[in-house]
Amino acid sequence: MSSIRVGMIGYKFMGKAHSNAYRALPMFFPDVKRPQMVAICGRDAAGVEQSRAQFGWESAETDWRKLVVRDDIDVVDINAPSDAHKEIAIAAAEAGKHIFCEKPLALNLADSVEMLNAAEKAGVKHMVGFNYRFAPAVQLAKKLIAEGRIGKIFHFRGFFLQDWIVDPEFPLVWRLQKDIAGSGAHGDLGAHVIDMARFLVGEFHEVIGMSETFVKERPLLTATTGGLTAKGDAGAPKGEVTVDDATLFLARFDNGALGSIEATRFAPGHRCTNSFEINGSKGSIKFDFERVNELQVFFSDDADDVQGFRRVLATDGAHAYSQNWWPPGHTIGYEHTFTHEMVEFMNAIAEDRQPVPNFADGVECQAVLEAVDKSIEERRWVAISELR
Amino acid sequence: MSSIRVGMIGYKFMGKAHSNAYRALPMFFPDVKRPQMVAICGRDAAGVEQSRAQFGWESAETDWRKLVVRDDIDVVDINAPSDAHKEIAIAAAEAGKHIFCEKPLALNLADSVEMLNAAEKAGVKHMVGFNYRFAPAVQLAKKLIAEGRIGKIFHFRGFFLQDWIVDPEFPLVWRLQKDIAGSGAHGDLGAHVIDMARFLVGEFHEVIGMSETFVKERPLLTATTGGLTAKGDAGAPKGEVTVDDATLFLARFDNGALGSIEATRFAPGHRCTNSFEINGSKGSIKFDFERVNELQVFFSDDADDVQGFRRVLATDGAHAYSQNWWPPGHTIGYEHTFTHEMVEFMNAIAEDRQPVPNFADGVECQAVLEAVDKSIEERRWVAISELR
Amino acid sequence: MSSIRVGMIGYKFMGKAHSNAYRALPMFFPDVKRPQMVAICGRDAAGVEQSRAQFGWESAETDWRKLVVRDDIDVVDINAPSDAHKEIAIAAAEAGKHIFCEKPLALNLADSVEMLNAAEKAGVKHMVGFNYRFAPAVQLAKKLIAEGRIGKIFHFRGFFLQDWIVDPEFPLVWRLQKDIAGSGAHGDLGAHVIDMARFLVGEFHEVIGMSETFVKERPLLTATTGGLTAKGDAGAPKGEVTVDDATLFLARFDNGALGSIEATRFAPGHRCTNSFEINGSKGSIKFDFERVNELQVFFSDDADDVQGFRRVLATDGAHAYSQNWWPPGHTIGYEHTFTHEMVEFMNAIAEDRQPVPNFADGVECQAVLEAVDKSIEERRWVAISELR
Amino acid sequence: MSSIRVGMIGYKFMGKAHSNAYRALPMFFPDVKRPQMVAICGRDAAGVEQSRAQFGWESAETDWRKLVVRDDIDVVDINAPSDAHKEIAIAAAEAGKHIFCEKPLALNLADSVEMLNAAEKAGVKHMVGFNYRFAPAVQLAKKLIAEGRIGKIFHFRGFFLQDWIVDPEFPLVWRLQKDIAGSGAHGDLGAHVIDMARFLVGEFHEVIGMSETFVKERPLLTATTGGLTAKGDAGAPKGEVTVDDATLFLARFDNGALGSIEATRFAPGHRCTNSFEINGSKGSIKFDFERVNELQVFFSDDADDVQGFRRVLATDGAHAYSQNWWPPGHTIGYEHTFTHEMVEFMNAIAEDRQPVPNFADGVECQAVLEAVDKSIEERRWVAISELR
Repeated sequence: MSSIRVGMIGYKFMGKAHSNAYRALPMFFPDVKRPQMVAICGRDAAGVEQSRAQFGWESAETDWRKLVVRDDIDVVDINAPSDAHKEIAIAAAEAGKHIFCEKPLALNLADSVEMLNAAEKAGVKHMVGFNYRFAPAVQLAKKLIAEGRIGKIFHFRGFFLQDWIVDPEFPLVWRLQKDIAGSGAHGDLGAHVIDMARFLVGEFHEVIGMSETFVKERPLLTATTGGLTAKGDAGAPKGEVTVDDATLFLARFDNGALGSIEATRFAPGHRCTNSFEINGSKGSIKFDFERVNELQVFFSDDADDVQGFRRVLATDGAHAYSQNWWPPGHTIGYEHTFTHEMVEFMNAIAEDRQPVPNFADGVECQAVLEAVDKSIEERRWVAISELR
Repeated sequence: MSSIRVGMIGYKFMGKAHSNAYRALPMFFPDVKRPQMVAICGRDAAGVEQSRAQFGWESAETDWRKLVVRDDIDVVDINAPSDAHKEIAIAAAEAGKHIFCEKPLALNLADSVEMLNAAEKAGVKHMVGFNYRFAPAVQLAKKLIAEGRIGKIFHFRGFFLQDWIVDPEFPLVWRLQKDIAGSGAHGDLGAHVIDMARFLVGEFHEVIGMSETFVKERPLLTATTGGLTAKGDAGAPKGEVTVDDATLFLARFDNGALGSIEATRFAPGHRCTNSFEINGSKGSIKFDFERVNELQVFFSDDADDVQGFRRVLATDGAHAYSQNWWPPGHTIGYEHTFTHEMVEFMNAIAEDRQPVPNFADGVECQAVLEAVDKSIEERRWVAISELR
Repeated sequence: MSSIRVGMIGYKFMGKAHSNAYRALPMFFPDVKRPQMVAICGRDAAGVEQSRAQFGWESAETDWRKLVVRDDIDVVDINAPSDAHKEIAIAAAEAGKHIFCEKPLALNLADSVEMLNAAEKAGVKHMVGFNYRFAPAVQLAKKLIAEGRIGKIFHFRGFFLQDWIVDPEFPLVWRLQKDIAGSGAHGDLGAHVIDMARFLVGEFHEVIGMSETFVKERPLLTATTGGLTAKGDAGAPKGEVTVDDATLFLARFDNGALGSIEATRFAPGHRCTNSFEINGSKGSIKFDFERVNELQVFFSDDADDVQGFRRVLATDGAHAYSQNWWPPGHTIGYEHTFTHEMVEFMNAIAEDRQPVPNFADGVECQAVLEAVDKSIEERRWVAISELR
Repeated sequence: MSSIRVGMIGYKFMGKAHSNAYRALPMFFPDVKRPQMVAICGRDAAGVEQSRAQFGWESAETDWRKLVVRDDIDVVDINAPSDAHKEIAIAAAEAGKHIFCEKPLALNLADSVEMLNAAEKAGVKHMVGFNYRFAPAVQLAKKLIAEGRIGKIFHFRGFFLQDWIVDPEFPLVWRLQKDIAGSGAHGDLGAHVIDMARFLVGEFHEVIGMSETFVKERPLLTATTGGLTAKGDAGAPKGEVTVDDATLFLARFDNGALGSIEATRFAPGHRCTNSFEINGSKGSIKFDFERVNELQVFFSDDADDVQGFRRVLATDGAHAYSQNWWPPGHTIGYEHTFTHEMVEFMNAIAEDRQPVPNFADGVECQAVLEAVDKSIEERRWVAISELR
């Protein structure tokens, strides 16, 4: 197998991000087994053909059921709408394909467990798209923690703050409808923070949360677009918003650390503040996705007169992936969190091991999300173990 | 009454801070009725005499009971240890003196209510020392909110992070003993955040919290000092830490805003990060006490291409108190949060009105603190109204 | 002409950057005429073949003279070492090819003028690689100035600070040898700042400078690599450093603005600080390449109580190129300054107009560089007009 | 001598700053010999009496000639307008008084030399008011350099940026008139930067500068006030601005370091940006007066993966003066640069040694200022030695 042949389902925002990653691999990571962009799939024939040409795929399909059984495909990459993940993933597993699935893995925990079981039963590789793990600055955070340089962890404070729906005239896009999106800020943004916490701190033990929908009705969307920059029509009839605008929760981790996590779309000035801070017995680290190349690091054992958070630009030779890119000080963008993610996926297949994060991580994340939902509904602390 | 005659009980850190404020008033606020530093009081005669001379008081007392009834005193300023606040305040009220009391008002809600009742019954002015309200940058935050420039508030996120007891060999100072301090990070630091939230957002409706004592035993303190920079003796016998090292809680405000509040002494790199962020329908504001002169402000209606948080240095003519200090760009320090506090106190007395914040604010703060404690003990949401 | 057929000479750092840009165009700028990556050229057959395969070019050449006359080439992209630019560019012009040439255009002003003349005589399009102009944040700076929102410009303060040769054991790479590199920090880094100043402020009138070579001898390089992260051999014999480590100069612009410009490779902690600040009668702007997506903007007519520099993240819909990338708050990297540069080049060819910046800009930049050199040699102010 | 008896001439901005410092000493530096605020002096009897009462001086004088010969005065503190410094200082020296003189020491170098000579001949202590040296963060910079922790210095980059006269309708206050102020931005702001460079880097060797007066005529001032926040009268007749609005210069230090220094009052958004950066062989430091408690420090020998500028809050026990103030993280303001300055002055008198900085530093600073002026006039490099 000289390359890994990919069939991708979905061709919008995430399809573009994944395609870009596949295209970047042979150029920037020539030692990684090369993904071959065999087929792209979507329901709208004209739309998928346009994306095929634009993104550089060899062929297009309009029926994912055909795609997942094609002989010339090794990997199925699922970035279709969330409500389609489960069915596709299980079919792909049954067809013996390796699977990359965007987050959220599924609309609920039960479905995600089914998906994990199917993939395990089929013996295929499976990965879930928690791309933020793969920012070099986040990799540095992981390294510092793993090497014990931050010590025992006391606190995790994580936020994902956005502001694109503060205007009450912003329309009722699909992300604000529970039957399609599954969840609002919690599942969309909070899921990333939960995964980051699991990656860096460890497993959650118990949680308690609260949530709110600040704008309860919004203009129905008449146009076809539904992106983050959609414009509402002030005169349009209104429909009910059925997901959360903001969800916050407190957490206790298995290792005794305390967590505070918040996801909101109602924080003006924050276009995409996916940030966290970790405090340990030997130091602290801070990250903000809007400055994706930077990590703030504090060491308690620095000399007494020069203690302070260091702003580390994670573009030096000592930083993950950096040698594949540009000289020190030359930053990379958001998009390459996906590139690095695909490095891991290709490497895992080539090395015959499970990639990380995989469906098991998607399941765990979903368990935490649902434990928070349950804690909100029942107004009490919920242990993650209750969900399993 | 050409000046307001002050008798102050307590002569350590807070006694120094208050003395400095009284001394600053005639110089920087010549139009404010002048405080006369009549008497300072403390149990240790030599200690209090040294402070008297150093801080510039006219006389010294060693028995607060004598002080509070002196004819030549109009105001009693209480910054003795927290466990003495109640008895002194009630005696001062009964003696008809106006009262300034450091926070926390009392060790518990019941005591603080008694103090408020005593002061109201006596018809004296009463103020509580939530000094952070009086930073010009915080005053600007208040002004922006009051003028509706931030719009309806969605979120309050407040933190008070310190790191002075991360070392497990740091000794068992009085602040780590519940019978003297009443509370740990929660009452010491969290109280300031709660007051800030009440000042800027409004009343709390319900809360749920969690807390932890990361280091459960510490070396007993043999030396007499107990300050924030005390050094432990590694060989000393150990005693139990009886307060929280960290307390976090979620909150819902009466006006529907969501709150997340955390107080910890286990955040390396944070010497004194008393910070908050508020998100509203028209903008956001951010504050960090370590940069006490600055406020970050975002307006959603800024032109599309130049939206961003502004770093406002609150030293311009348009900012509170600034015209009494130095030209624009010339910052002031922490200490003048006390100076401004005393401006309010002196003005309230001169204008025959209650100062703000007063004992009622101390009571409300205590109610929230205890609601959080109760929520931790009972592992459930607690409405503030349950405490009243 | 359905696409624009490119032949590229050079296959190292810049060859990689350009290739990446060409590859990005059809995906992210599908409306721009598509570059066809026809041939890559370099002297080392094995090396160029490796890059051909890695970067995705259709064919490889080892003789640039053959490349520039190929019938299937519309454009010659020159990113070979600086000392080869002139000969190649003139040959390409004579062959009727459009030319993209990396900066510096040539080793000296006379050569650059010859190149410009050749291109003009041949009637081809010509562009020079001042890529930093194409960061969206810099484009925003340009827009604000062009729209008069910063007012009349008083000051330009520009720095390009690096630190990769501070260690005296860093070896004598080609960039430190005048006969190959032409210049040191001045021509390599200062040229970018000069171009930025010309782009944003206007033409230089006169200059006076100073320069220094802090480490005058360095270990000879035995290994073949010569990149920014080369390691020296402490025991190796030493050779003379023949370029400047740092060059600073003052400038007066034609429009009366004052400039201060510095380029140095001796600024520890600065991996790639290409920064500037501009002060005008209505406001100020600041940029730092290490935070390439951000622009700091100050407006003097903001309300009195909320004046402050705004940190604008240039990823909103209102910002140049942003709609071709990701949603607001999702940053892009250094590499796409090249992508945008190629958008301009392809568009200019398609629209039959000269791209900007073109060889005339390369000539002007070279004139300023040499005026500074002359001012250093003669220890006096030198008008740019003296050089013409 | 149980205290040091001070007579102060001047009672405006600087008189207030000095008075505040004298008042702070006994409280915060009880071990320092106490200044006794014996007499304040100014020409306007009513004005000086008001300041006397407000600032807390024992007596007032309206004739400085009487003040300097009073028997009950040990020290003369001169903060009268700059054009009066020389005459007063010489008279004070002849009367055997120790002298504190605000910067600039005199209107020109010759005068400042006379003042130094007079003080030396009289054998009195003399100090000049370069207060910025005394910020704890600047003291830390000095310490790091002195201990060799930054290594050999390559670069000094210093700026003093303000914006209070950008509006062309701002009136012609005394600071804009050469006969009274002596100089504009150069002497007022640049002098501070020059002193900082001398303090941290060493002596200047040669300089070349440029300057500009952007607004050449301004409304005459009809009101009596002339402060930084004066408002102009759009209809008033105009007068000529006779000082520089901005002056920039390049410098070479005796030790080989390169300098770039700029002073301007035309930088919108900068209320008081007195900032510098120093690059050395082992690291770098950065300071900005608007964040007076902070120093940014970079060490080249930090571990490879965590290199970055540290933001050090100079309020820890390890920092100069900090133990006399508040706990770590509790910042102090601009005003205490004067307090620390007076600590040095009082200590020098008590220890019978010259304080630092003293008149010799004032002379050196003036020499650099005039060398820059000469270099502008003659459009050539000027060695400082030419001035001596």
